[in-house]
Amino acid sequence: MSHNSFGHLFRVTTWGESHGPSIGGVIDGCPPGLALTEADIQPFLDRRRPGQSRFTTQRQEPDAVRILSGTYEGLTTGTPISLMIENTDQRSRDYGNIADRYRPGHADVTYDLKYGLRDPRGGGRSSARETAVRVAAGAVARRVMGPQVRVRGALVQIGPHAIDPVRWDWDQVGQNPFFCPDADMVPVWESYLDQVRKSGSSTGAIISLEADGVPAGLGAPIYAKLDAELASALMGINAVKAVEIGAGFAAAALSGEENADPMRMQDGRIAFQSNHAGGILGGISTGQPIIARFAVKPTSSILTAVASVTRDGEAVDVATKGRHDPCVGIRAVPVGEAMLACVLADHLLRHRGQTGR
Amino acid sequence: MSHNSFGHLFRVTTWGESHGPSIGGVIDGCPPGLALTEADIQPFLDRRRPGQSRFTTQRQEPDAVRILSGTYEGLTTGTPISLMIENTDQRSRDYGNIADRYRPGHADVTYDLKYGLRDPRGGGRSSARETAVRVAAGAVARRVMGPQVRVRGALVQIGPHAIDPVRWDWDQVGQNPFFCPDADMVPVWESYLDQVRKSGSSTGAIISLEADGVPAGLGAPIYAKLDAELASALMGINAVKAVEIGAGFAAAALSGEENADPMRMQDGRIAFQSNHAGGILGGISTGQPIIARFAVKPTSSILTAVASVTRDGEAVDVATKGRHDPCVGIRAVPVGEAMLACVLADHLLRHRGQTGR
Amino acid sequence: MSHNSFGHLFRVTTWGESHGPSIGGVIDGCPPGLALTEADIQPFLDRRRPGQSRFTTQRQEPDAVRILSGTYEGLTTGTPISLMIENTDQRSRDYGNIADRYRPGHADVTYDLKYGLRDPRGGGRSSARETAVRVAAGAVARRVMGPQVRVRGALVQIGPHAIDPVRWDWDQVGQNPFFCPDADMVPVWESYLDQVRKSGSSTGAIISLEADGVPAGLGAPIYAKLDAELASALMGINAVKAVEIGAGFAAAALSGEENADPMRMQDGRIAFQSNHAGGILGGISTGQPIIARFAVKPTSSILTAVASVTRDGEAVDVATKGRHDPCVGIRAVPVGEAMLACVLADHLLRHRGQTGR
Amino acid sequence: MSHNSFGHLFRVTTWGESHGPSIGGVIDGCPPGLALTEADIQPFLDRRRPGQSRFTTQRQEPDAVRILSGTYEGLTTGTPISLMIENTDQRSRDYGNIADRYRPGHADVTYDLKYGLRDPRGGGRSSARETAVRVAAGAVARRVMGPQVRVRGALVQIGPHAIDPVRWDWDQVGQNPFFCPDADMVPVWESYLDQVRKSGSSTGAIISLEADGVPAGLGAPIYAKLDAELASALMGINAVKAVEIGAGFAAAALSGEENADPMRMQDGRIAFQSNHAGGILGGISTGQPIIARFAVKPTSSILTAVASVTRDGEAVDVATKGRHDPCVGIRAVPVGEAMLACVLADHLLRHRGQTGR
Repeated sequence: MSHNSFGHLFRVTTWGESHGPSIGGVIDGCPPGLALTEADIQPFLDRRRPGQSRFTTQRQEPDAVRILSGTYEGLTTGTPISLMIENTDQRSRDYGNIADRYRPGHADVTYDLKYGLRDPRGGGRSSARETAVRVAAGAVARRVMGPQVRVRGALVQIGPHAIDPVRWDWDQVGQNPFFCPDADMVPVWESYLDQVRKSGSSTGAIISLEADGVPAGLGAPIYAKLDAELASALMGINAVKAVEIGAGFAAAALSGEENADPMRMQDGRIAFQSNHAGGILGGISTGQPIIARFAVKPTSSILTAVASVTRDGEAVDVATKGRHDPCVGIRAVPVGEAMLACVLADHLLRHRGQTGR
Repeated sequence: MSHNSFGHLFRVTTWGESHGPSIGGVIDGCPPGLALTEADIQPFLDRRRPGQSRFTTQRQEPDAVRILSGTYEGLTTGTPISLMIENTDQRSRDYGNIADRYRPGHADVTYDLKYGLRDPRGGGRSSARETAVRVAAGAVARRVMGPQVRVRGALVQIGPHAIDPVRWDWDQVGQNPFFCPDADMVPVWESYLDQVRKSGSSTGAIISLEADGVPAGLGAPIYAKLDAELASALMGINAVKAVEIGAGFAAAALSGEENADPMRMQDGRIAFQSNHAGGILGGISTGQPIIARFAVKPTSSILTAVASVTRDGEAVDVATKGRHDPCVGIRAVPVGEAMLACVLADHLLRHRGQTGR
Repeated sequence: MSHNSFGHLFRVTTWGESHGPSIGGVIDGCPPGLALTEADIQPFLDRRRPGQSRFTTQRQEPDAVRILSGTYEGLTTGTPISLMIENTDQRSRDYGNIADRYRPGHADVTYDLKYGLRDPRGGGRSSARETAVRVAAGAVARRVMGPQVRVRGALVQIGPHAIDPVRWDWDQVGQNPFFCPDADMVPVWESYLDQVRKSGSSTGAIISLEADGVPAGLGAPIYAKLDAELASALMGINAVKAVEIGAGFAAAALSGEENADPMRMQDGRIAFQSNHAGGILGGISTGQPIIARFAVKPTSSILTAVASVTRDGEAVDVATKGRHDPCVGIRAVPVGEAMLACVLADHLLRHRGQTGR
Repeated sequence: MSHNSFGHLFRVTTWGESHGPSIGGVIDGCPPGLALTEADIQPFLDRRRPGQSRFTTQRQEPDAVRILSGTYEGLTTGTPISLMIENTDQRSRDYGNIADRYRPGHADVTYDLKYGLRDPRGGGRSSARETAVRVAAGAVARRVMGPQVRVRGALVQIGPHAIDPVRWDWDQVGQNPFFCPDADMVPVWESYLDQVRKSGSSTGAIISLEADGVPAGLGAPIYAKLDAELASALMGINAVKAVEIGAGFAAAALSGEENADPMRMQDGRIAFQSNHAGGILGGISTGQPIIARFAVKPTSSILTAVASVTRDGEAVDVATKGRHDPCVGIRAVPVGEAMLACVLADHLLRHRGQTGR
């Protein structure tokens, strides 16, 4: 059992705090013989990197990843892949004033309640900075699955403003700072976030993920369900409060007839005529696209003072200065993609051991 | 790694198919010295048992649990607790016609896609019957946590009909066949489900869970987050498609100010003045009530014929006869409670090893 | 993490006490489509069954195994295989007098030190009776590996009397009550054990195991080494105090030249001209026969009184009456075979996930 | 499941190859609040460091450890501890000639058989260099156990020359380059190893480990036995072929009377009047010193040519030039101590979760 690892046959263990010398992770179980260099990982880190628009934290770092082990002459060897990213921009002073007072909505208080002490610099281990390592691991996971599997994500709601699915265009996602698939929504979000940012407030968001080309049969029927492990992986991302697969909560209001996904054969394989199941039945992939959505709460760091307490139990009102994302949901898009990719890679490897095929 | 177990220090492994001689499970890691007999488990099984109202399957069995190991003179010994429940009512004939044709929305097709064969009798391993063992394990988990922790659940929506939270009354939950906390909603659901049942259709539902008295500090900040593992446990229940903690998806539309849970000291401990976090911050329990909700899709077994295929790939339209729950969400209430109890018990034991306290 | 399971992809969890209603286990991870009925398991249980000669305990039970789940129409389905064996001969009275006094060399004292209580009847969970479930699991593991892999064991030393390797004949193993491969040693052991038994004493033994036809490449180089996991599996058998692979302890006295196993190609694959390595290099199987040996201490149950203490800390001298094996090493042979078979089956399944092949 | 980790609640994952930029590991599960800096780890690495006498490899590196995460102001925080050691002396040229030919007795061949490729530089992942990380982890494990637990080891046999236990003096261990507790044996080993080294040969060895002050009750009775996990940890050290606990193989020749460890009360706790059990009964610690021994095979790198094959299957005779330890057993002493310390720390943390105490 590990509290800082996920996955089983494709197993990722991360380490590092926001303001330590570096952060990193170890990927154990990557099969041998896959082409892998830093150049295969860096582009995904760049998508998540802060400071790329006025809508994300102004923390500036290259987030350059180094592979310290597990490859030889550009190929994976089957041994652990150690990844490391230097922390180059650590303005501890921004955070010094929160060592003794709990920021409402942050993990400061629960860390102290659990461990009795913590590294307060930049939120220490609980900083979203750790997600950079997840993104790097996701890039390796994509290699494991191969090119026939495509994992992508998009932001579909910021605050009260949801996109119109009818206008969904994946090509738009790379064209704006929000990973937004609906071109008409971009200006709405821009003005909304400008106002949120200026007022020192923050807002929540909803991300949608999709994986195409996933082979049928991945997962397990009872406790290692593909959807259950995906729910864990997504709920485990900082600030996530909700996860749904396929029709999700909306399925509660449907009748059996409305929810059913009819099947017919097509090109020699089973094709479903709808996908309320989100590509997963009984915890096992159907071969249809896997669809998941998750919600991110508003950033807890806001300029408005909120009632709180100090480590010594004195009442205090806390406003969080310093750099932060007004909407952490934006940068959660590449993180969500990475978690989905890792869960799929793990189950792809497990499937062989489960079935002997 | 196991595909039929969950939990780490409080570890539950289940086995059995719907129409085999029996189903059961092994609980590994229950601490020694706890009072435990069948009488402590049976009441929870009785709450889940089918055939108690016209709104659940008419399958009739006592679901009498036997403890085969792990206790001596009424106390747990720290050795594995083996639980077994006989299958007494197995009308295979009801299901014989579905061995070669896939029921839309069922795991029939994915089982075959993964394993190449399956036990078709009553859905075999994928039958909700397996959840009886989870409920039994949950009863043991409650013993591990002790009386100060109270885990309870309620049904809050059936089809389009949601309760009014203002009328929430926990005392009502035991007074109707729906685990409904809103007395005024009971007749609405009765007439709605009667119509659903008569038309051979089915409907989805939403369940809400709450745990009071949970000590602060349970969980872990990165990958063994209490909310992540709870999401996995609930998403792993048959037919569940969505899970949320605290404010859940609604948090996406909130501002940081609206979402913040102010803190003040009260009776020497930190008290939050609201609970959008659902009792969990940074993956660790805050000491507030833990709140989770999950959605159950409509039962896939309906009398309306839906397009499907046979094992041989021939087009066929399938209508599912035989006994079934028009709304599996009802019996999901005690199952959800049990999963929450097991996750908490596991983390309670893990907490000691994590912190040395 | 589990304290009553072993293996990862081929995972065995056992439960039950010596004098409970039954003992059993759950095998999770057996691939689908393998022919398996009780008749495939029973012969191995029969080899281990007590009461077959005057040299083993006179406890009399059929040890009839039942498969409660995981197969359909004689084939495994990929779901958990639940195995159960009834306890039919439970002479608790034989053991009643040891509830409050610790038998020297038994786990009575450490159970109480750890758990604070225990089931004293027949040693409860610590009874060698639990090994019956291991033997049953081993029979399933043999199915997983298929007929090309042959796992067998022999007893090579009882007390001071070791066999002569020169006279080793596998065909003899089934011809005597000792699993002895050296016909000339059988009468020596008979008279030695008769004397040991008559004097109410006991003796230790050494078992040798061999697996032929094991594919090269099973295992892992660092912490999941095939030899490390085999050492754990064998050391975990009741009363085992030592394990060695290949040349074992003797390798300490060898020079590099003496210990080297020369390689040449033969029939298109690498053949080693000796096997000091015992078929494992760097934790990975070489394709040569896997050779392991383990030592079993003398049965602790003897008629000679030994200084001990009661639960209350009073000095007392304890002599253990009741039925027991004068040499538990004899029945450890089929148990050792089973553990080796399970470790190999687990690594065979893991290999696919590790290498993607 | 991980192939490069060990332990459960005190979990160590290592990474790195002999000639990569660095090696390292992640310790997950170290409790918070323990004083820990590099200065607490370095002395143990120095004991293992090569090049300290003419009897170990002349590879020269400082093996300076860096803590990259998991501590704040000199205290552990409960988050993962990332340790890194630079590789500063990498004479790949020494090894270039073995990329295509298998060194007999090395893992070269099994790596290729398993993974199809490998990093040949200095043995890559299979190099004993990886054990430096184990030693660093062991230093942290000692912190977890606290000062009342003392873990130490000694070399008791080199080639055919075994020490005389009667002359055992722990104070001598630090006084000679062999960790030898028998002063009279030191000159014998010196002249023997000089001759072995000059002839380009190598020799095996036996190491003895002892842990004092270990609390009673650590371990588990069936599959997570303290002795079984210790056997796995020691057998997993490079070149180890045998492990024994307490009387070990010698127990096979003993009678029950000879093997029994009598018990009496002493200072309010149970004291054993002998320790054939090696401090472990039924897989659980008794409170007596834990005693284990393990055997290391002769270094496979010798100047004498041995029959082998190339990757292409051509017959070739291979002699291994380059720097190597004539007796790897010497540097296995601190490694063995570290593995014992890690196993104990893991079980100390697990014990709390197992028993609720």
